[in-house]
Amino acid sequence: SQVRVAILTVSDTVATGAGPDRSGPRAVEVINNVSERLGGASVVATAVVPDSVEAIQEVLTRWSDVDHINLILTTGGTGFTPRDVTPEATRPLIQRETPGITQVMLLESLKVTPTAMLSRAAAGIRGSSLIINMPGNPNAVAECIAALMPALPHAMKQLRGDKREKHPNHV
Amino acid sequence: SQVRVAILTVSDTVATGAGPDRSGPRAVEVINNVSERLGGASVVATAVVPDSVEAIQEVLTRWSDVDHINLILTTGGTGFTPRDVTPEATRPLIQRETPGITQVMLLESLKVTPTAMLSRAAAGIRGSSLIINMPGNPNAVAECIAALMPALPHAMKQLRGDKREKHPNHV
Amino acid sequence: SQVRVAILTVSDTVATGAGPDRSGPRAVEVINNVSERLGGASVVATAVVPDSVEAIQEVLTRWSDVDHINLILTTGGTGFTPRDVTPEATRPLIQRETPGITQVMLLESLKVTPTAMLSRAAAGIRGSSLIINMPGNPNAVAECIAALMPALPHAMKQLRGDKREKHPNHV
Ligand code: NA
Repeated sequence: SQVRVAILTVSDTVATGAGPDRSGPRAVEVINNVSERLGGASVVATAVVPDSVEAIQEVLTRWSDVDHINLILTTGGTGFTPRDVTPEATRPLIQRETPGITQVMLLESLKVTPTAMLSRAAAGIRGSSLIINMPGNPNAVAECIAALMPALPHAMKQLRGDKREKHPNHV
Repeated sequence: SQVRVAILTVSDTVATGAGPDRSGPRAVEVINNVSERLGGASVVATAVVPDSVEAIQEVLTRWSDVDHINLILTTGGTGFTPRDVTPEATRPLIQRETPGITQVMLLESLKVTPTAMLSRAAAGIRGSSLIINMPGNPNAVAECIAALMPALPHAMKQLRGDKREKHPNHV
Repeated sequence: SQVRVAILTVSDTVATGAGPDRSGPRAVEVINNVSERLGGASVVATAVVPDSVEAIQEVLTRWSDVDHINLILTTGGTGFTPRDVTPEATRPLIQRETPGITQVMLLESLKVTPTAMLSRAAAGIRGSSLIINMPGNPNAVAECIAALMPALPHAMKQLRGDKREKHPNHV
């Protein structure tokens, strides 16, 4: 596979078995649907962790530093409740911020609902991995991936250092 | 009161008595007008400080850590002049960033004037307090609160840990 | 000259002589074209450095701390390739962030191409200098400067501490 993707569901409810994981499987489904456009993407790993900075960072670090996953998506834990800490777990691991990614997700999500402004999602590059926090709502995950698709193939090629992709247009 | 609000006016001019505080009272008026929509909000504290990092941080820390204010709004000190340091005073106190809040204020303010891009406002959560920097212009304060109102009630409920509010839609 | 501008081209290709600098000269041309609107701007320095954090920081620090340049524009090195480190060189030098500047550049660039979301540009104030990362594409540089022009004259006056410019409208 050209683009290896991993999906991390962050949720106390799912991690304790108190409820089903709806957003993780939805993210897998969406990635499979756009696989060809993404340059041959496949989901090679999924995991579920509670809303814990340590648990989130353990998985993100392993997927980036050991498994060299190209695209890591998290879902959940980006809101305002006291347990929502996914951005706080993600941000210290990021070596190069990608603010345009989160801003485009916000712009697209605001078209659906004003409560999108409460997403505190972070995104950025660690090593050769692009890590993106997505909302916990399954529909929002699908909408956010769709919003990024016009640029995500370029992003994946640039991360690999493909010089032909260096200046696709305006970057 | 369900939602306790505090308003901090940051201005050398007002603090020294060289001019009237127009933006602080305007913020109080706007909060009173949206009190019911905010779930029963009332302004329980106001203060005026000069454009000083130490003075700003003393009030913000007390309102958050001691008084457990739910919503703290600052007005003033977000521009480009050498004395504008409100975001620099606020950012180190924030434990969980809320970038969608500032981005929505920017998007709405840009509809009024392009100089809105010069606002350097920060926003985020400290303990159980949501702290938001607003511009110093009274009309801009009113516009920014209006821009946040579609999501602010959810934000206040999420901050209290209300699980029913965890996934209102897309967060 | 009222507003002294400096342009830094960040590019391994240009620095090694393997290709021409198209974006730096384009930035100079655009600044010359808007000179009067900017309050009498002139480009007083240009430089080319490779995609190296140290090389970039050496020039930015000198232009800000020693030469007291009013407006410093960089071009290049804001993308996702492993060599793109201009924002990482810039961000630690910034004393006061100006997030509205980068957000407006993103909003305008997205009107031209969705790959604009891959720009990781940073911007902010160091001393009396406004430092702005611009994309490496010459057309994008022109578009980004154009996007900022409605507020850039105010920004330059505010940086000098002109009190009449403190509250042009909404800042
Ligand atoms: Na470059």
